[in-house]
Amino acid sequence: MNPIFFTQGQSKLYPGVPEHIRTALAEDVLSMSHRGEAFQSMYRRTTEGLKTLLAIPADYHIFFLSSGTEAMERIVQNCVNRSSFHYVNGSFSEKFHTTATALKKNALKSVAETREGLMAPVPEEAELIVYTQNETSTGIMVPVELIHEARKRYPEKLIAVDIVSSAPYVHLDYASVDLAFFSVQKGFGLPAGLSVLIVSPRALQRAKTLKEGGTSVSWYHSFDELEKYALKNQTPETPNVLGLYLLGKVAEDMQKVGIAKIREMTDARADALYGYFEKKRPQFTSSILDESLRSRTTAAFEVAGGSAPLIRMLKGEGIVVGSGYGKQKESHIRISNFPAHTDADFKALFQALDAFA
Amino acid sequence: MNPIFFTQGQSKLYPGVPEHIRTALAEDVLSMSHRGEAFQSMYRRTTEGLKTLLAIPADYHIFFLSSGTEAMERIVQNCVNRSSFHYVNGSFSEKFHTTATALKKNALKSVAETREGLMAPVPEEAELIVYTQNETSTGIMVPVELIHEARKRYPEKLIAVDIVSSAPYVHLDYASVDLAFFSVQKGFGLPAGLSVLIVSPRALQRAKTLKEGGTSVSWYHSFDELEKYALKNQTPETPNVLGLYLLGKVAEDMQKVGIAKIREMTDARADALYGYFEKKRPQFTSSILDESLRSRTTAAFEVAGGSAPLIRMLKGEGIVVGSGYGKQKESHIRISNFPAHTDADFKALFQALDAFA
Repeated sequence: MNPIFFTQGQSKLYPGVPEHIRTALAEDVLSMSHRGEAFQSMYRRTTEGLKTLLAIPADYHIFFLSSGTEAMERIVQNCVNRSSFHYVNGSFSEKFHTTATALKKNALKSVAETREGLMAPVPEEAELIVYTQNETSTGIMVPVELIHEARKRYPEKLIAVDIVSSAPYVHLDYASVDLAFFSVQKGFGLPAGLSVLIVSPRALQRAKTLKEGGTSVSWYHSFDELEKYALKNQTPETPNVLGLYLLGKVAEDMQKVGIAKIREMTDARADALYGYFEKKRPQFTSSILDESLRSRTTAAFEVAGGSAPLIRMLKGEGIVVGSGYGKQKESHIRISNFPAHTDADFKALFQALDAFA
Repeated sequence: MNPIFFTQGQSKLYPGVPEHIRTALAEDVLSMSHRGEAFQSMYRRTTEGLKTLLAIPADYHIFFLSSGTEAMERIVQNCVNRSSFHYVNGSFSEKFHTTATALKKNALKSVAETREGLMAPVPEEAELIVYTQNETSTGIMVPVELIHEARKRYPEKLIAVDIVSSAPYVHLDYASVDLAFFSVQKGFGLPAGLSVLIVSPRALQRAKTLKEGGTSVSWYHSFDELEKYALKNQTPETPNVLGLYLLGKVAEDMQKVGIAKIREMTDARADALYGYFEKKRPQFTSSILDESLRSRTTAAFEVAGGSAPLIRMLKGEGIVVGSGYGKQKESHIRISNFPAHTDADFKALFQALDAFA
C-alpha cells in the first residue's frame, strides 16, 4: 500500500488525478498543439473553472507560470518601480523580500509573527504590500480580514498575497487584492510544475505603465505579453499542457463538492488536528501562541527533543509528514491538511501517533 | 485508434512514456518532496543520463527551465552585457533577437537562410553568437560544422545554440559551444513543460561576472542560483517533477537503442520523406534550395494552392501534420521526424498522401 502524504511540497494527489491522467493520455492531451483549438478550449475551461471555484472577479486576469517562486519574481518585475513592503513571518515571505532586493528594489520589511505585527503601518514609499497569507515554513496564517482592512487603509497601494499553500481553502476576497498566486501541487493536489497568478486590472495597468516607462521587466512573462496570449486562450511559451488540463479537471471536481463544503471539511480536520495534539500530545506544541494565526492547511508543531524519531516512526507506519523548515528543520514536524486529505487519513495519522511513546 | 502526430509542438510520445507515467504514479513520484533524497537521486539519474546520451562534457552544467522560450531569456539575462549577434533564419531565431532587444541589449542580426548567410562575419562588439540550429518555423537546418568553425574563428565569443527541435538527433560537439537548449516535447517525445539548458564553465563564469558587475539578471533563475541548487541535485523552485522523471527514463531508453542508431534511423526516414515528395509529389516543394540546409527533424514543404485541404484530408486519415508557421501558415505543411516516429508511421503518411489527388 502506498503511504499517505501529509507533506507540503508535492503532497497527496487529489482523488481522480490518476484517472484524469489516463484520460489525458487517451485523448492525446500530451500530443496536442499549444496553438490549436483543442488547447484553447481546454485553456478556457481551466480559467473559467478557477474563476467560478474561487469567485474571482470577471475582469481579473489569470496568468499561468511555472512555480510560486516564479510568481514572486514576476510580481516584483512587473509591479514595483522602486519600493515594496513585506510582512515577514517565515522563510517564504523572507524569500519574496530577498527576490525584490535582488531585483534592485528598495524592499522594506517588518517582522509579522503576531496580529500586531501584521497590522504594522506600511511605509509611505511602498508601492506594493506583500502578505504571505499562509507561511508554509512556520505555519503562521494571516487572517484574511487583516488583508481586506489593508485595502481600505491603503487604497492607493497594490496588494500581493502569497496563497501558495492555502488555495483553494483560503476565503480571500479577490476584489480586495491585486495579485494572488498559488502553485498547483499543494491545495489542488496536482503534480508540480505550474502556478497560477491572479491579477487585477489596475495591477496589469501598473505593469504596462512601468514597461512603457522603461523599468526593466522580463520579456516573455511580462504582464502585457501574458495578457496578449491569454486573450487568445494561450500562453507565450509552450506551457505545462498536462498541468493545465489537470487543473481544469480538479477545479471542476472541486466545484461539484462545493467550495463551502471544502472549507468546512478543512476546518473540521484542522480542529481535529490541533485538538489531538493539545489533548493527546501536549508535549508537541504549536509555537504560534495566537490561535487565530495557526494555519488551517499547513500546521507546524514543535516536538520536544527533536522531530526526527517521530517522522521516522510515522514513515514506518506509511505516513509521510514534513520536517521543519530552515532553522526549525530538526525541531518541527509539519502536517498538511489539503482538500485531498480525508478524515480517514487523519484517523490513520492519529492512530500512528497514539502508538508513539 | 488515436491519430499519428507529426506535429512540431507537443508531438508523438516516445514509446514507453505512458508506461513510465503509470510507474511514476505507482512509485509516488507525483507526491515526493523536491527537497528529499528520492528526488535528488532521480535528478542525478536524469542529468547523468542526458550527459551520457548526448556526450556532454563532464564539466558542463545542466540546468532545468520551463520552456525553450524561457531559455532564450535566461541566456540573454545571464550572458549578455551589451551586445548579442543572431543568425536569423525564421520566426524562432527572430524571437531570440526580439528577446534580446526587449531586454535592452544591442541585439544585432543577419539574415541567414543560405550557407553564405550562415557564415556572415560576426560583428566585433557581439559577446554572444546565437544560432537557431534547427529553425522549426521554416525547416532550415544549420549544419553543425558551421557552428564548430565559428568557435575557431571567434574563440573569445560565447556561442549559444537553439536545438529545441533537433535534440537529441543533432550531432553537436557540445565542447565547441557554450549554451545549448531544448525542450522535451519535441525530440524526446515527452509532455511539454520542461526545458534543458546546457552551460559551459566559461558561460557560467561570465554570468557570475555580469551579476557581480550589477548587470540586471533575474534572481531565481540566474545561473549562480541554478548552479547552487544543481550542486545539491535540486532546482531553485519546485520543478516539473514528473517531467524530470520522464526525461531521465526516456534518456535511458534512448541510450539502450544507442544515439548512433537513433541518428541513423532519423536520417533514413528524412531521406525517405524528402525522396517521397520529390518523386511522388513534385508540386509540393521545399523552399530551401540548398539541400544541406533542409531540416532532418522538422521538414517544411510548400503546397501549391495552399496547405489547408491537404492537412484536413490527412487528419481525416488519422494523421496530424503541422500547418506552416507565421506568414507561411497557409502555404506550408510541416512534418516532424522525431525519434518517436517509426517507419510504419511514415508508411501510413505516404499511403495517405498517395490518395491525395
